[in-house]
Amino acid sequence: MSRFLSEKYISLKPYVPGEQPGDKRYIKLNTNESPYPPSPKAIQIVTQGAAEGLKLYSDPVARKLRKAISSYYGLDESEVVATNGSDEALCFAFMAYLGSGEGIAFPDISYGFYKVLRDFLGVRSEVIPLKEDFTIDVEAFCKTPYHVVIANPNAPTGIPLSLEEVERIVATNPARLVIIDEAYTDFWGKTSIPLIKKYDNLLVVQTFSKSRSLAGARIGFAAGNRELMRDIDRVRDCVNPYNINTLSEMLGVAAIEDTEYFSECVAKTVAERDRTAKRLTDIGFEVLPSAANFLFARHKDIGGKQMYLSLKEEGVLVRHFDVERIKDFARISIGNSEEMNVFMVKTLKILEGVKKK
Amino acid sequence: MSRFLSEKYISLKPYVPGEQPGDKRYIKLNTNESPYPPSPKAIQIVTQGAAEGLKLYSDPVARKLRKAISSYYGLDESEVVATNGSDEALCFAFMAYLGSGEGIAFPDISYGFYKVLRDFLGVRSEVIPLKEDFTIDVEAFCKTPYHVVIANPNAPTGIPLSLEEVERIVATNPARLVIIDEAYTDFWGKTSIPLIKKYDNLLVVQTFSKSRSLAGARIGFAAGNRELMRDIDRVRDCVNPYNINTLSEMLGVAAIEDTEYFSECVAKTVAERDRTAKRLTDIGFEVLPSAANFLFARHKDIGGKQMYLSLKEEGVLVRHFDVERIKDFARISIGNSEEMNVFMVKTLKILEGVKKK
Repeated sequence: MSRFLSEKYISLKPYVPGEQPGDKRYIKLNTNESPYPPSPKAIQIVTQGAAEGLKLYSDPVARKLRKAISSYYGLDESEVVATNGSDEALCFAFMAYLGSGEGIAFPDISYGFYKVLRDFLGVRSEVIPLKEDFTIDVEAFCKTPYHVVIANPNAPTGIPLSLEEVERIVATNPARLVIIDEAYTDFWGKTSIPLIKKYDNLLVVQTFSKSRSLAGARIGFAAGNRELMRDIDRVRDCVNPYNINTLSEMLGVAAIEDTEYFSECVAKTVAERDRTAKRLTDIGFEVLPSAANFLFARHKDIGGKQMYLSLKEEGVLVRHFDVERIKDFARISIGNSEEMNVFMVKTLKILEGVKKK
Repeated sequence: MSRFLSEKYISLKPYVPGEQPGDKRYIKLNTNESPYPPSPKAIQIVTQGAAEGLKLYSDPVARKLRKAISSYYGLDESEVVATNGSDEALCFAFMAYLGSGEGIAFPDISYGFYKVLRDFLGVRSEVIPLKEDFTIDVEAFCKTPYHVVIANPNAPTGIPLSLEEVERIVATNPARLVIIDEAYTDFWGKTSIPLIKKYDNLLVVQTFSKSRSLAGARIGFAAGNRELMRDIDRVRDCVNPYNINTLSEMLGVAAIEDTEYFSECVAKTVAERDRTAKRLTDIGFEVLPSAANFLFARHKDIGGKQMYLSLKEEGVLVRHFDVERIKDFARISIGNSEEMNVFMVKTLKILEGVKKK
C-alpha cells in the first residue's frame, strides 16, 4: 500500500474472487457461471450496437434495461435500478442504508462479499450462525434489531428459505430493511420480488451472471418500492452516474426478453444438478439440498481441500472455502452434461485412490 | 427518498449528467463525446467476444487491458488500474485517500463530479478560485495542505496547465497526493503520466470516452506508482471486484492498439476545434484557448443560457452551466465538420435575431 492510504483501510481484507485461470485448460465448476452461451438474440444485437452506439455515452439510468426487467416482473419502471453486476447493487444498498451508524445482520456462512462491504464501510454487524443443518436461523433474523441481508438460496450451501419465511422476517419488524440477494433464485423458480409491492422495507437484488449466462457483461439489479430505488439512484448518481455500458444494456434487454431460451437453460441446469446430486449421494457423499446452480457436498473419506486439490490436478476446478464449519465441503458449479460426466469420473477415481491408501 | 436512507445523505446533490435525449433529433455538442465511431478493429472483435466470452466472469483485474494501456505509455502493468469509466477511478481514489479526515483541494470551476464525490464522502475541501483569466491558480495549489485534484486541460474552460506547472504542484509538497484528471489531454497531445516514475504522490486518471470514441463502453484508468495502484485495487476489490465487463475490455485493448485510427480522429477534432474557434472569434465571440475537444465561448450580445436554449430550439445541444462566474458561456463539444457547419449557421441566425430586437 502507499503512504497515502487512509488509515481505516489498512487492515482490510478484500473479496477474493474464485479462480479464473487464464490458460482455459480446466472444466470450470468453481464460480457458478452458466455452461451455456447467452441468448443468440443477445449476441446478434451486439455487433449492431458496437458500430452505432459506443461513441455516445450510455444512458445514465439504463432505462431500456429497467423497463425490460420491470416488465418481466410486473413492476413499475420506478421499482428497478440496473447495476454493474449485483455486487454493485449490494454496495449501493450498504452505502445508502448503513451510512450513519446503522448495523447489518447476515448468516455466518453466506456470500463472502457481505463481510467485505461491512469492513470497507466500517459498519456494525450481527453475524448469525446457520443452524446445525446449515439452514438459516429464521428466529434469530426476526429478533435482530439490525438491517438484514440474506442470500436466498443461500451460498455456498444452496439451501433456500421459503417465501413465507422471508415474509416473516420482513414483516416482523418494519423498522428494519431486509435485503434478499436472489443471485441463484431462478434455479429454484421462486422470487420475493412480488412482496416489494406489500412491504416498503424489502429490497431484492438479482444478477444476470448465473441463469442468464451473462457473467462477463456485468448486469445486476435492485428491486424495491420507488422510494428505496430513489435512494439507490442517489448513491449511483454520486458514485458512478454512467454505471451501465451500452452493450451490456442491450445484452440484458435481449436476454430477459428471450424467455424461451432462458427457461431451456435453467431446466437443463436443474436436471443436471439433480442428476449429479443423486450420483454423488450414491457414492457416499452428503449433498445439501440445493435450490441453486451448484452443489455443496462432503464425503467422509476426503476433506474439502483435498478434493479441491485432487480435482484441480485432474483438470476440474471446484471451490473450497477454508472456513471451519464448512471446510469438509466442496462447492461444485453445475456445468453441462459432458462436464458433469467428467467431474463424476474424476471424483470416483480420486475416492478410489483415497481408499487404497 | 425512503425512511431508511442514512441521514448524512439526505441533503446530497448528485451529479447531473449532460442531457442525453432519447429521440436523437439533436446535433449533440453537449457532452464532449467523439463524433467518430470507435476503431473498426474494436467493433470487429466484439461479435466474436460476445459469442465466446460472456457466460464466464470477466477478468477481475482486466489484465489484458492493463497490459495494453501500460505498454502504450511505457509503464509497468502494475502501474495501471482499469476502471468502469474514469468517474470510477476518481471515486476509488477519493475513497482510498480521503477516508480518515484528509481534505481535498480543487478549482471552483472544474468537473462537477469532484464536488459530488466530496459531498457523498463527507470530505473537507478547499475550493480554489480560478484566476480572472480562468486559468488555474498554481500558487494557491502549491500552498494548500490538502490533497489536490485538477482536470488538465480543465473543464469546462478547456485551458491547460503546462506539464511544468503540474510538476511544480506535485513536487512542492510530497506529503500531498496530486490527482491529475486527463480526460481531455489527448486533444492537446501532452500527458503527465511519465511523471509517475519520478513522483510517488502523483496519480493520473484518463478515459476512453473522448479521444477513443468509447463513451458507451465505460472505460477509464488510473496510472501511478505500484503502491498507489495497490490501494486503488484494494478499494476496487472491496466495492466491485469485477468492475470491467468482458466486451469493454476487448474494445479497450483494440482501441488503444489502433494508434493510427486514434491519431486520425484526434487530428480531425483538433482541426475542427481550431477552425470553429476562429469562426466564432470572427463573429465576436470570446473563446477561451482550448486544448480539449470543446470550446468555452461567450458573446456580449447573448447570455449563455439564452444561447443554449436558442440552439436547442434549432436542434443543436450545447451545455450551459448555471454558475455565477461562467453563466455567460456555453460549452460546445466539437462534432464533425458537417455538425460544426450547422452549429455555425444556427449560431449566426440566433445572433442576428438578437440584434434585430
